[in-house]
Amino acid sequence: MRKKIQLNPIGSMSLLSQYEVDRLKQSTTNELYRLMRNCCLAVLNSGAEMDSCEDLFAPYQDFDIELLQRERGIKVALHNPPELAFVDGRLIRGVHEHLFAVIRDIVHMSAKYESNGFIDTTDPVQITHIVFDMLRNAEVIKPDLEPNMVVCWGGHSIGNVEYQYTKEVGYQLGLREMNICTGCGPGAMKGPMKGAAIGHAKQRFAYGRYLGITEPGIIAAEPPNAIVNQLVIMPDIEKRLEAFVRTAHAIVIFPGGAGTAEELLYLLGIMLNHKNSEQCLPIVLTGPKQSAAYFESIHHFIGETLGAKAQKLYRIIVDDAPEVARYVRQQQDNVKQYRLNTGDAYHYNWSLKIESDFQQPFEPTHENVAALNLHFDQPTPQLAAALRKAFSAIVAGNVKADGLQHIREKGLYQINGDVRIMSLLDELLQSFVEQQRMKLPGSEYKPCYEIKR
Amino acid sequence: MRKKIQLNPIGSMSLLSQYEVDRLKQSTTNELYRLMRNCCLAVLNSGAEMDSCEDLFAPYQDFDIELLQRERGIKVALHNPPELAFVDGRLIRGVHEHLFAVIRDIVHMSAKYESNGFIDTTDPVQITHIVFDMLRNAEVIKPDLEPNMVVCWGGHSIGNVEYQYTKEVGYQLGLREMNICTGCGPGAMKGPMKGAAIGHAKQRFAYGRYLGITEPGIIAAEPPNAIVNQLVIMPDIEKRLEAFVRTAHAIVIFPGGAGTAEELLYLLGIMLNHKNSEQCLPIVLTGPKQSAAYFESIHHFIGETLGAKAQKLYRIIVDDAPEVARYVRQQQDNVKQYRLNTGDAYHYNWSLKIESDFQQPFEPTHENVAALNLHFDQPTPQLAAALRKAFSAIVAGNVKADGLQHIREKGLYQINGDVRIMSLLDELLQSFVEQQRMKLPGSEYKPCYEIKR
Amino acid sequence: MRKKIQLNPIGSMSLLSQYEVDRLKQSTTNELYRLMRNCCLAVLNSGAEMDSCEDLFAPYQDFDIELLQRERGIKVALHNPPELAFVDGRLIRGVHEHLFAVIRDIVHMSAKYESNGFIDTTDPVQITHIVFDMLRNAEVIKPDLEPNMVVCWGGHSIGNVEYQYTKEVGYQLGLREMNICTGCGPGAMKGPMKGAAIGHAKQRFAYGRYLGITEPGIIAAEPPNAIVNQLVIMPDIEKRLEAFVRTAHAIVIFPGGAGTAEELLYLLGIMLNHKNSEQCLPIVLTGPKQSAAYFESIHHFIGETLGAKAQKLYRIIVDDAPEVARYVRQQQDNVKQYRLNTGDAYHYNWSLKIESDFQQPFEPTHENVAALNLHFDQPTPQLAAALRKAFSAIVAGNVKADGLQHIREKGLYQINGDVRIMSLLDELLQSFVEQQRMKLPGSEYKPCYEIKR
Amino acid sequence: MRKKIQLNPIGSMSLLSQYEVDRLKQSTTNELYRLMRNCCLAVLNSGAEMDSCEDLFAPYQDFDIELLQRERGIKVALHNPPELAFVDGRLIRGVHEHLFAVIRDIVHMSAKYESNGFIDTTDPVQITHIVFDMLRNAEVIKPDLEPNMVVCWGGHSIGNVEYQYTKEVGYQLGLREMNICTGCGPGAMKGPMKGAAIGHAKQRFAYGRYLGITEPGIIAAEPPNAIVNQLVIMPDIEKRLEAFVRTAHAIVIFPGGAGTAEELLYLLGIMLNHKNSEQCLPIVLTGPKQSAAYFESIHHFIGETLGAKAQKLYRIIVDDAPEVARYVRQQQDNVKQYRLNTGDAYHYNWSLKIESDFQQPFEPTHENVAALNLHFDQPTPQLAAALRKAFSAIVAGNVKADGLQHIREKGLYQINGDVRIMSLLDELLQSFVEQQRMKLPGSEYKPCYEIKR
Repeated sequence: MRKKIQLNPIGSMSLLSQYEVDRLKQSTTNELYRLMRNCCLAVLNSGAEMDSCEDLFAPYQDFDIELLQRERGIKVALHNPPELAFVDGRLIRGVHEHLFAVIRDIVHMSAKYESNGFIDTTDPVQITHIVFDMLRNAEVIKPDLEPNMVVCWGGHSIGNVEYQYTKEVGYQLGLREMNICTGCGPGAMKGPMKGAAIGHAKQRFAYGRYLGITEPGIIAAEPPNAIVNQLVIMPDIEKRLEAFVRTAHAIVIFPGGAGTAEELLYLLGIMLNHKNSEQCLPIVLTGPKQSAAYFESIHHFIGETLGAKAQKLYRIIVDDAPEVARYVRQQQDNVKQYRLNTGDAYHYNWSLKIESDFQQPFEPTHENVAALNLHFDQPTPQLAAALRKAFSAIVAGNVKADGLQHIREKGLYQINGDVRIMSLLDELLQSFVEQQRMKLPGSEYKPCYEIKR
Repeated sequence: MRKKIQLNPIGSMSLLSQYEVDRLKQSTTNELYRLMRNCCLAVLNSGAEMDSCEDLFAPYQDFDIELLQRERGIKVALHNPPELAFVDGRLIRGVHEHLFAVIRDIVHMSAKYESNGFIDTTDPVQITHIVFDMLRNAEVIKPDLEPNMVVCWGGHSIGNVEYQYTKEVGYQLGLREMNICTGCGPGAMKGPMKGAAIGHAKQRFAYGRYLGITEPGIIAAEPPNAIVNQLVIMPDIEKRLEAFVRTAHAIVIFPGGAGTAEELLYLLGIMLNHKNSEQCLPIVLTGPKQSAAYFESIHHFIGETLGAKAQKLYRIIVDDAPEVARYVRQQQDNVKQYRLNTGDAYHYNWSLKIESDFQQPFEPTHENVAALNLHFDQPTPQLAAALRKAFSAIVAGNVKADGLQHIREKGLYQINGDVRIMSLLDELLQSFVEQQRMKLPGSEYKPCYEIKR
Repeated sequence: MRKKIQLNPIGSMSLLSQYEVDRLKQSTTNELYRLMRNCCLAVLNSGAEMDSCEDLFAPYQDFDIELLQRERGIKVALHNPPELAFVDGRLIRGVHEHLFAVIRDIVHMSAKYESNGFIDTTDPVQITHIVFDMLRNAEVIKPDLEPNMVVCWGGHSIGNVEYQYTKEVGYQLGLREMNICTGCGPGAMKGPMKGAAIGHAKQRFAYGRYLGITEPGIIAAEPPNAIVNQLVIMPDIEKRLEAFVRTAHAIVIFPGGAGTAEELLYLLGIMLNHKNSEQCLPIVLTGPKQSAAYFESIHHFIGETLGAKAQKLYRIIVDDAPEVARYVRQQQDNVKQYRLNTGDAYHYNWSLKIESDFQQPFEPTHENVAALNLHFDQPTPQLAAALRKAFSAIVAGNVKADGLQHIREKGLYQINGDVRIMSLLDELLQSFVEQQRMKLPGSEYKPCYEIKR
Repeated sequence: MRKKIQLNPIGSMSLLSQYEVDRLKQSTTNELYRLMRNCCLAVLNSGAEMDSCEDLFAPYQDFDIELLQRERGIKVALHNPPELAFVDGRLIRGVHEHLFAVIRDIVHMSAKYESNGFIDTTDPVQITHIVFDMLRNAEVIKPDLEPNMVVCWGGHSIGNVEYQYTKEVGYQLGLREMNICTGCGPGAMKGPMKGAAIGHAKQRFAYGRYLGITEPGIIAAEPPNAIVNQLVIMPDIEKRLEAFVRTAHAIVIFPGGAGTAEELLYLLGIMLNHKNSEQCLPIVLTGPKQSAAYFESIHHFIGETLGAKAQKLYRIIVDDAPEVARYVRQQQDNVKQYRLNTGDAYHYNWSLKIESDFQQPFEPTHENVAALNLHFDQPTPQLAAALRKAFSAIVAGNVKADGLQHIREKGLYQINGDVRIMSLLDELLQSFVEQQRMKLPGSEYKPCYEIKR
């Protein structure tokens, strides 16, 4: 029995003009349509814990989504949506919001930028504008709030001890009335939000924000969990990372795999830029005592590749969730003072300098991976940028549709460079594999890369 | 002693990107700057009752406004602003809002459309989009509200009896929890808002909306009064009129002069379009019993020029404010039902057909005025359009900067056409002059036109 | 045609228990019922400007009010209520609130205190408790607000120049985000509220409070105007005065007649108490320049009877509304500091000492009036107390039901005392009569007293 | 090192008069003080999972609480409070609220009733009034809400499978925007709230209510969990039970021990009253499939003692959380309709008849227990009342301070009655013991009673 459901738009999507709906419908190519459909399907599967988009989508071959034009704007029809998302025939409100976040960011915003020939997407000022515009249009920018947004990074595939620890950190942050922003998947992206929700409830902090910033390639692998009450899908990883760092008033990094390493290297690459030397952005690496070894190996890798200066940018706190939260909270006075001094906004770190190299999308083709300059003979921020791209490729090869496709067609990525760096990299990746940080526990990990030493 | 004050942005202007601020500053020509300065000065003089922009501006030769770029966005510096707008050194919040409405609509929105080459400002769909976008960006569109917006038109220069009557109608509308939208000047534009405010207070209707829709050429002559809590400055008269009719759930027309006649003819021209024959939009012409003659002459003029069908589009109610409000309130069920049936929004009448002729700005040059086709040998809606342009020119010649300039340079406008129409027009205008509806009472009216019979 | 309307309770009256409704119904005597009926009728006549309760009530002989007991609590049925209070058959919300304020304070609260034998209504602590309890139960006490309540006193019968001035002072106070509390009748009790409402609107001060504190004997003569959004009916004049002074963060006194003199003397009597010597409560006497003479005579009377110390408790500001508001606003820092220092609440001045003599109801019988000790041989606060009782009697004899009755039955009140004081009193009262401050303009004043010199 | 902290009052406690503070301080006996101290200590230990008040209190011998009188009302000083309740030196807001709920209900409300000699605490109308007054004063009564309060009963000591099931039921109820009310301890009292919180979050149901109704004797054994955002401490079990059933729009009963049996028998006793035969109150007994046997034995016991009519008052749903929630939700239309038909409130079931026998506190002395009439020769509702008292005594003997004391002093309770009933009772209690429903798992249960057969 086929089922069809019509939905009214939510948020900024409920106020489109006829012209915008036309534009949106006209610029929706087959490819864009498929992307939207898949992201919507992922969102409708929120709650299911699988990290293969292929497994996730298999039962819903006949799922379809239709954009309907009405006098008053846009409407959406779902054909055969997953039952999971409905309660007594009514779509769960949170999922409803996420669905329109997908349509808003993937279809409407891309149509907006496509139809505007004046936007130059290679100009750093305009890229930063687009990131801001995406967040603003998602109604995520709240100009009146004090600095309190903690970006949490970490693996989507972590063991229970680590997961409980991320929850505890979230709880301690919530008790201190800090909000949480993550990549909005399972594991270390879900724990802090769940914990913070309880902390907020205890403090009667009514308007807790659980901000998820994702991107189309990752959303299916990491469908947003129930608690995310603000969802933005950035067009690519680089804009997603820029959104994270410009939104953050503190960054807490939990144990993770290649994705977490990518994020950390991106962050260090930017903070090492001498133009950012005055920036105030507390960074904490933390985990339970069982994960101490993990941080040792990361810390060692950074020390050996980027040097002691990079190591000083963060603080490692092992097995002390209250201390993490206390430190982050205390630093907010400095964050606030810095923003006041520079005339910068609390809600978006405009003064943070992000070089073009960190903004341009990195396409994880075999050619691009092989061409990465992984040698010491360059400024440290550039080495950080190259290293982060290497990890980016590995993430793609592990879980993303395009990466999986590349690997199926052309075999493993070939990563080469300075012998010392290759050795360090191999060691680090090996430890990730051993600690089961590459895939959800239970599944066996098959590497998507080969380190040439 | 020179005085300088810095102001933080309000509303959507508090969330501009660096790119938008750049764009805004770069596209601010001398002319645009002068326009903004004058509109800001008018806003800062809110409360003063003068209808000559020249008189208003004379004492403030050294007033200046500066747009400052900060990391977090835009800031404004005022040099030597009028004292009137300040309380103990702090700008009145309402004036502060109006000031940023001016900068938003005149500078930011014009920069937005100028830099977007993809927008075709002759395409009716895109004009309607711009009107909507201006309102939406002004945060005036409230999607969740029931139909309750009554647009009130009428003279800015009316006698006390008529003014008290507009207040009484506003009061009766307010008691019925209707909101008010006007051109936001004095006279019939102020009375209904003041009255409604008291009606709202009695009903504990906390979120009364007093929406002013104006345009740059008129704002100085009609600075927004204190009660306006939503202000939009449309780029030209035609977009202002479109904003009125698409926002309205009812239109109440009080006695007025040429401007009011312009508005009425615009409205009838649109409603006479057979594509709008199903539209549900209650229109009431009303005034105290002393104004009965006024409505007779208008009604006669319309009957003779546009016919009985046009006369059926409105209802004349003399000296019965409660009946006006009761009728408008009762009609809201029909308005709502019509919008539901057509799938249209409550907050913006998308399905109303407005032909290009009613959308294109009419430049009140002597050539354009002389070229108006004021004959019977054309469809009625087109005759209505031509007549409304004639009145538009007279308004410009009476009070607007560009019109006054034209008249000074080239003498009176020459209006010609069908003898019968000329005769009717002459008669009507003569009655306006006699009733002192062309200027604020006290000043002698010198016509800016000549009717060729 | 008889008309009957049922009303649901509002505010705290919507949460009565069955026991409370029983108690309320059982303790409603004929007399209490008549009082409630009359006060409700006055409230339903809000807007009518008459100061004789007899004139007001004449057309509504068949008006009746019934208290109905329902499972969920109380309901009210109105029989033949005045049309004035309804809009299209629905009671105006503000009047609906006022109506239940009457039932709450006159019936429910009196039943509450009557059935509680443990309350001793002669104990000052318990009287202050009752005043507080009445205000709290009326949901008028807002613990989180900064000090900003300005109590305005002045005549209900003032000329247009004075009325416009009270409006201007209210406007200036409203622009400075001060709230207004008055006795909630016409004249000087209405002007400041209307003015403040416009000031609040300009400042977008959304939650303006217009608090009316009245009493059963005065409500019919001074039915609450439309703007009052919080109404409390205290059981007697003394509790009403106590409510005023404990609620006030500043007191502004406009020209008035006997009632205003009563209020001023009450206030000075309390402030002269040495236990209140540290109290911080700004008091301003103000009026337009046309009223300068009025303040001179009052100031003179106070100087001669209570001395220079009493004169120093207030500031006279003539014809400068902005200065009144500026002064009151500036003093709020001191008010706040004083409350903090003494550990007192912002919302109720607990530490103000009010002696029993100022709390006990004064019954305006001929015996009591004749027995007043109006001589110099007593402490100044006591003389102030006696003088205020004299004025209280005159107010009763002028406009209140019981006073009018006394006069009809026993002739004029006989006021006697020290020759000098009698002379001063006669002079002052004579000037009130000449300035038409005793009755609404238009009616001729017939004195209800005789001064024995 | 001794530590002292001062706290400001919250909620209705922030608006006490000086008279009320005096009264409160004067009526605080040593015994009442100890009760308040212990309840506050329990509240401050929220989060600790122990069911022996003795264990809980042992480490805090030097904890003390002081009520301070200030001009503005009451303040509280804590001496050596548990660290657990503080974050960086600041009391957790939720705990702060709970603390003042204790002082409000135990000290202030008892002083209020003690000082009011007119209240007759044996009169059913006045008892019902007191229950209402306690809830109203706790600001728990919300007159504008639709029926949506689900009272959940069940054991504080349940296994993990049952606990997860209570969470799932709460989640399904939360998804359907139902609120939760429990006895606010651990186990089945915590699970539904936690689940509902997640369901509410998914539905963006911002104002989820988690209402805890407890009593002094139970609060230490079952300190309120973090999620409770409304807490009321009723003076005794009977008023607590009355508060439950008058507040409920549905009742869901999970597996539990003697306390749950007490609640169920109380409920059935009332619903069996023929005056309540029209009442609409859905009752569901539910648990995971592992608990099916439990419900069988309860159902059997009820059938044998109270008959088939009693069995028809509830529905048993095994292992189907969505069905529980769906059923409860669907029934709300009937609940609403019934209240409308009877003129009853949504927020408090006034029309439910509760006989005096169910309202009078049952003192669990050995004499009272021995005197219970547990025979068939009486109306069924009375047998239900007697049975519920038997279970009440067992709860006291298991976990409450006074009961434990009685047992220590006089040995086991002696329960006697009809042989068949004794046998059924013994069987049921035995099954509770075997299923470890009498104490938190891990501790061995020593019965506090002896069944005489």
